[in-house]
Amino acid sequence: MIQRLIQKIQETKAPICVGLDPMLGYIPDHILHASFKEFGETMEGAAHAIWNFNKEIVDQVWDLIPSVKPQIAMYEQFGVEGLKVYEKTVRYCQEKGLLVIGDAKRGDIGSTSAAYATAHLGKVKVGGALCSAFHTDFMTVNPYFGTDGVKPFVDVCKEEDKGLFVLVKTSNPSSGEFQDKKVDGRPLYELVADKVVEWGEGCMDGEYSNVGAVVGATYPEMSAVLRKQMPHTYFLVPGYGAQGGTAKDLRPCFNQDGLGAIVNSSRGIIAAYKQEKYAKFGPAHFAEASRQAVLDMAADIGSVL
Amino acid sequence: MIQRLIQKIQETKAPICVGLDPMLGYIPDHILHASFKEFGETMEGAAHAIWNFNKEIVDQVWDLIPSVKPQIAMYEQFGVEGLKVYEKTVRYCQEKGLLVIGDAKRGDIGSTSAAYATAHLGKVKVGGALCSAFHTDFMTVNPYFGTDGVKPFVDVCKEEDKGLFVLVKTSNPSSGEFQDKKVDGRPLYELVADKVVEWGEGCMDGEYSNVGAVVGATYPEMSAVLRKQMPHTYFLVPGYGAQGGTAKDLRPCFNQDGLGAIVNSSRGIIAAYKQEKYAKFGPAHFAEASRQAVLDMAADIGSVL
Repeated sequence: MIQRLIQKIQETKAPICVGLDPMLGYIPDHILHASFKEFGETMEGAAHAIWNFNKEIVDQVWDLIPSVKPQIAMYEQFGVEGLKVYEKTVRYCQEKGLLVIGDAKRGDIGSTSAAYATAHLGKVKVGGALCSAFHTDFMTVNPYFGTDGVKPFVDVCKEEDKGLFVLVKTSNPSSGEFQDKKVDGRPLYELVADKVVEWGEGCMDGEYSNVGAVVGATYPEMSAVLRKQMPHTYFLVPGYGAQGGTAKDLRPCFNQDGLGAIVNSSRGIIAAYKQEKYAKFGPAHFAEASRQAVLDMAADIGSVL
Repeated sequence: MIQRLIQKIQETKAPICVGLDPMLGYIPDHILHASFKEFGETMEGAAHAIWNFNKEIVDQVWDLIPSVKPQIAMYEQFGVEGLKVYEKTVRYCQEKGLLVIGDAKRGDIGSTSAAYATAHLGKVKVGGALCSAFHTDFMTVNPYFGTDGVKPFVDVCKEEDKGLFVLVKTSNPSSGEFQDKKVDGRPLYELVADKVVEWGEGCMDGEYSNVGAVVGATYPEMSAVLRKQMPHTYFLVPGYGAQGGTAKDLRPCFNQDGLGAIVNSSRGIIAAYKQEKYAKFGPAHFAEASRQAVLDMAADIGSVL
């Protein structure tokens, strides 16, 4: 699977992932009003608006990028109606040829992780039939339970040729509270990184493993250390743009070959029309603003590679 | 919220939570066959069988226990159809007067955690309306992101009078891989415990906080230390029964007043009819086997309190 991602990154020359994390506050009024008019101010109305918003953005950016990363929390808050649109978005993006990273950050004891792995990457047996639920290409995983909580995800990657990004060092301000704590002189996230390398060894796909890592753009010195420690691990890098990470901060996440990382931007792309820089597009052309923001992001990252 | 749980524990004399974690393999053939006959071997068929299984168990045990804990992964693997049954199960249990602990173990950066908190405990604003999605009374939370990843859950607890159980020391075999690592001579889970106490200080409800902790039954020496470290924190204790924890192992999770912990059992109750001890009930009376297993579990725990 990671080779499919690399190939698409090389084709598009854009190591970029657009975060489809729709908040209702990002959606232009004309879309909200139309959906509320049809379905009322209900979960169904919200979900309908999210779908129209997502579709317009995907239609504008699909040819520029290798992948999208829908954050499932943004759909889950609208309950079953929201999750229907999550599913629909995943399938639509895949039809457009995009690889989909389900940002679910699941993790639990072994038998429960196995159910999550099935839900997002695998197939579930129903009588004599095999069915699949959310069917993403990659998913994000939380490592707090240790090996037996991560192994079921790794197993599904092997069986189904899928990929993971395991949280190593996250982009948020208080990520250091536990992740940076020193264990025998080394920060905890380096111990997690060692395990991610170990989990990924049985999952190699060319030069890189199907078991990747989440490494925030907001801590570039730490990214540099992790890059050396994990030469065959792909990084999913959140924190660029709205969270404060710059293109210069991203450089240490990449290997010398220009590969090794894919950078996510969510509101910086999907709500671009709300920025002064893209205000000329206006709410009616919000998705064209997103397209321009993707082009600008690709140029910005290209300038440091 | 924690006082409502305590009151129900005192009424039922059973500090017990039944884990509604339905695997298709636990469901008697007569239920599966009827659902597959009606809906085919599909996600809808699986979900229908799970609902009938859950309902029969809840109908048999609701008067004996204060709470249930549906593990959302078991529903998520059946996609949208599974999540409809999760929602239906939550509401049905609440109608029966049970408190529902949504076992979702969510956690992310602040804005995403806010969406998860809304999804499971809060209300989302849609236009001028407030809607709620999964609407559980408590939920489980993963602390790996640190304070800013947990705070949105705590905030919703304050606004909506809900409760949390934050992972501190989990019950699985490899939980020690990261959680037991020594930081300045203390295991990481004790540092997490300090933070859980801090997060819970603004959320007191009587003697206990609405911010509780997950502490596995399988490590009783550690439970004893955590019990002293967190005197006002309620423990949600997994690992009893099928995972190996005994009643004696549970004692250190409780305070001297006999309060402070609620013990979960999932397959030990819901699949009781598959154990030799309860085989006499047979698949046709599987839910009566669950009732007997709850009575036996309450007596077993009562013997050490």
